[in-house]
Amino acid sequence: MSKDITNKKILITGGLGFIGSNLTRRLVERGNTITVVDSLIPEYGGNLRNLQDIQDKITVSFSDVRDVQAINNLIKGHDYLFNLAGQTSHLDSMHDPITDLDINAKAQLSILEACRKSNPEIRVVFASTRQIYGKPKYLPVNEKHPQNPVDVNGINKIAGEQYHILYQKVYGIASSVLRLTNTYGSRMRIKDARQTFLGIWIRNLLEGKPIQVFGDGKQRRDYNYVEDVLDALLIAATEENAVGKVYNLGAPDPLSLEDTAKIMCQQIEGGDYQMIPFPEDRKAIDVGDFICDYSTFRDQFRWEPKVSFEEGIQRSLEYFRSEIEHYI
Amino acid sequence: MSKDITNKKILITGGLGFIGSNLTRRLVERGNTITVVDSLIPEYGGNLRNLQDIQDKITVSFSDVRDVQAINNLIKGHDYLFNLAGQTSHLDSMHDPITDLDINAKAQLSILEACRKSNPEIRVVFASTRQIYGKPKYLPVNEKHPQNPVDVNGINKIAGEQYHILYQKVYGIASSVLRLTNTYGSRMRIKDARQTFLGIWIRNLLEGKPIQVFGDGKQRRDYNYVEDVLDALLIAATEENAVGKVYNLGAPDPLSLEDTAKIMCQQIEGGDYQMIPFPEDRKAIDVGDFICDYSTFRDQFRWEPKVSFEEGIQRSLEYFRSEIEHYI
Repeated sequence: MSKDITNKKILITGGLGFIGSNLTRRLVERGNTITVVDSLIPEYGGNLRNLQDIQDKITVSFSDVRDVQAINNLIKGHDYLFNLAGQTSHLDSMHDPITDLDINAKAQLSILEACRKSNPEIRVVFASTRQIYGKPKYLPVNEKHPQNPVDVNGINKIAGEQYHILYQKVYGIASSVLRLTNTYGSRMRIKDARQTFLGIWIRNLLEGKPIQVFGDGKQRRDYNYVEDVLDALLIAATEENAVGKVYNLGAPDPLSLEDTAKIMCQQIEGGDYQMIPFPEDRKAIDVGDFICDYSTFRDQFRWEPKVSFEEGIQRSLEYFRSEIEHYI
Repeated sequence: MSKDITNKKILITGGLGFIGSNLTRRLVERGNTITVVDSLIPEYGGNLRNLQDIQDKITVSFSDVRDVQAINNLIKGHDYLFNLAGQTSHLDSMHDPITDLDINAKAQLSILEACRKSNPEIRVVFASTRQIYGKPKYLPVNEKHPQNPVDVNGINKIAGEQYHILYQKVYGIASSVLRLTNTYGSRMRIKDARQTFLGIWIRNLLEGKPIQVFGDGKQRRDYNYVEDVLDALLIAATEENAVGKVYNLGAPDPLSLEDTAKIMCQQIEGGDYQMIPFPEDRKAIDVGDFICDYSTFRDQFRWEPKVSFEEGIQRSLEYFRSEIEHYI
C-alpha cells in the first residue's frame, strides 16, 4: 500500500512543522537527501525540536515561502517537492486575511513559477484542506462537493490547489493535491487550536485541565493519524495516475466531538471534558458535521487508514508526555 | 426592468475603463456624486478619453486598487461601490500571474477589509467573469457548473468573488457578484484582445484589415452590449434579493466565431475575415464553445438583454469611427 522513495533529492516546505517533520524523518530513513524549508513563524507549526535529533542528516533553510528569490534557488535540483507550508488557522485567516493570502495563495504561485522556470521535471504534492468545502450540503463530502468556504483560509487554499492543477495542465508540472481532514499525532502543534482543536485538547489533558467541547458536542469529525497521511503523501508523489488530480483523505470511523472527548479522556488518568457554548468568532465559521468521502483515493490506490483513533491518540499522548516542554 | 440610483455617493473602481466609464456616465446623468478610481495601467482598460467631456462633473482618483492606504481612504463615505477594476487578459495572467493575483484577488480582499473597517453599510457589486468555469462540461453553463479555470485569471477571479460572498455572510457587507461574459460597446479597449477579442476585431475592421478567426471558427460565444450590462449592475446594486448572491449574465443569441465575424463584416464597407490556426499560447487556455445560462438573473429580476448583437456592433462601430484615434 505505502510507496517508497529512496535516494532522491527532496524539498519539503513546512518541513519543521507537524506533517513535514514526520515526513522528513521517514524519508531520511529511506536514504533520501532532504532540504526542509521553514520560516518558524511562532503561530505556525514549525518547531526545531521536531528534527533536532536528526539535524545533522538534513539541510534546513529558514526561508519563508513568500521569499520569491529564496524559493527560486531552493526549487532547483530537487526530484520531489512536498509543498506543506501553510497558514492553517481558520480564525487567524479572518483576523489577518492578507497574510493568509500571501502564504496560502501567492507563495504557491511563486513556487509553481519557480518550478516552471527552473525545474519543470520536479514531482509536486500539495497539501490542501477539507476547509475548502465549507458547510457540507451532504455527507460524506466527496471531491465533487460544491466549494463554499466559510473563511478566508478556505478561499485561499482553493486558489493554492487550483494553481497546482493548472500548472500541471498547461505546463506539465506533475502535481497532485491531497485535501487533508483533521490530522493529528506526534510533533503536532499543541500550544493552541491553530492546527486542529485536537492539539489543544491533548495539551489540556496532559496538563490536567478539562477539554472544552464547543456547542452540543454532536458535530461529527473525522481524524487521520499522521503516519497514515504520510502513506498517502508518498502514494500521491509516486503514482503516475495521481498526476493532475485532487483527492480527499479521510477515515472510516468519524466521531462526534463529545465521543472524541470521551475517548481521549479514557486514555489518561483523571481526564475530563466540559461542554461550553460556542465562542462567537468560532460559531461564525463553524461548518457543523464534517465527514470526508475518501473512497476515490482508497479505491484507486488501496490506501486505507491503519491507525484507529484510539491507538493514534494513545501514541500521541505517549509522545507528548515526555516532550511537552518543547511544545508549549 | 432597469433600476435607478439617484443622488447617492458612488465609488467606481476601474471607473476610467470600459464598463466603469459607461456606468459613470449613466450615474452622473441621474444626479449621483461619482468618484472613479483608476490607475490607468497602459495594458488595461482605463482611458482618459472615456470621461473627458464630463471630467468637471466627477472626481477622479488615479489610485491603484493595490494601494491599501488609498483604498481605505476612498471607501469612506460612499453609499455604493461598483468594484470593476481588474486585470482581464487571460494571456497576461499566464505571463505575469503574480500581478493578476495582486489585482484580482489581493486588492479585492483589501477593499473588503476597508469596507468592514470603515464603511460596513456600503452596497457592493463585484464584476466577475465566466472565465472561472473553464472548459464547459455542459451548455449553457449555469451558476452551479464546476469551476475548473483554464488560466490564472480564472482562479484569481474565483477568489475575488468568494471574498465578496464571505464578507457578506460573516460581516454583513452587502455584496452581489455578476459573472460577465464577452461585453462590448463604446469605450471598450480596442488596441488588442486584452478585454475581449471583439475589441481587436472592431479595430481591424475600422482600419480596413481582415478580422482573424482562430481555429475552425465554430466555437460559439455569447455577447452582451454594455448598456445591458449597466442595467444588470444597477439591478444587482439595488435589489435586496441579490445580496450575497452570484449570477451569470448572458445573451439569448449565441453565435459561432465565424458567424460573429460575418455579422461584423456586413456592417462595414469592405469588411473581411480570415481563418487562421490557433496560436499555441491561446490554444492552451481556450475553452471551446461557451454559452452562459443567465436564466436565474433573468427570472428573478426580469433582466433581459435589449440590444441585439447586430445593433450593438453597429453602435460600437459608429462610436469608434469618429473616436478611433483616442483608442489605438
